[in-house]
Amino acid sequence: MSITPTRKQFGKRLRALRKKAGMSQEELGFRANLHRTYIGAIERAEQNVSVDNIHKLAKALKVSAEELFK
Amino acid sequence: MSITPTRKQFGKRLRALRKKAGMSQEELGFRANLHRTYIGAIERAEQNVSVDNIHKLAKALKVSAEELFK
Repeated sequence: MSITPTRKQFGKRLRALRKKAGMSQEELGFRANLHRTYIGAIERAEQNVSVDNIHKLAKALKVSAEELFK
Repeated sequence: MSITPTRKQFGKRLRALRKKAGMSQEELGFRANLHRTYIGAIERAEQNVSVDNIHKLAKALKVSAEELFK
């Protein structure tokens, strides 16, 4: 998949919120029911995440989905 | 595709913001460079929209992406 500025921004934000929550990619993956390698790929902007998974990630991080777009 | 609560919420929000902007599905599609039938499908929660298209929709509506998750 191609890397777009939108994906870069999203990946960066996800990583920041994950670190803030003190979670590893593995832990976030476990909590969101997504594979840890998928979390890594999102953070590296290699994935075009969809609303369903955005919702799962937000829930696992205990933030609102809009928080992921700030 | 299955309809999830997350997709329903997103579709409802998109429709509300589109109506607020006084745009038809066709006009939003034109501005976002997405097909009007795809806009309709998102609003009906039939699509699991991804960050790239969320960004296109927000831009076309002249709102921030986070606005679409409020």
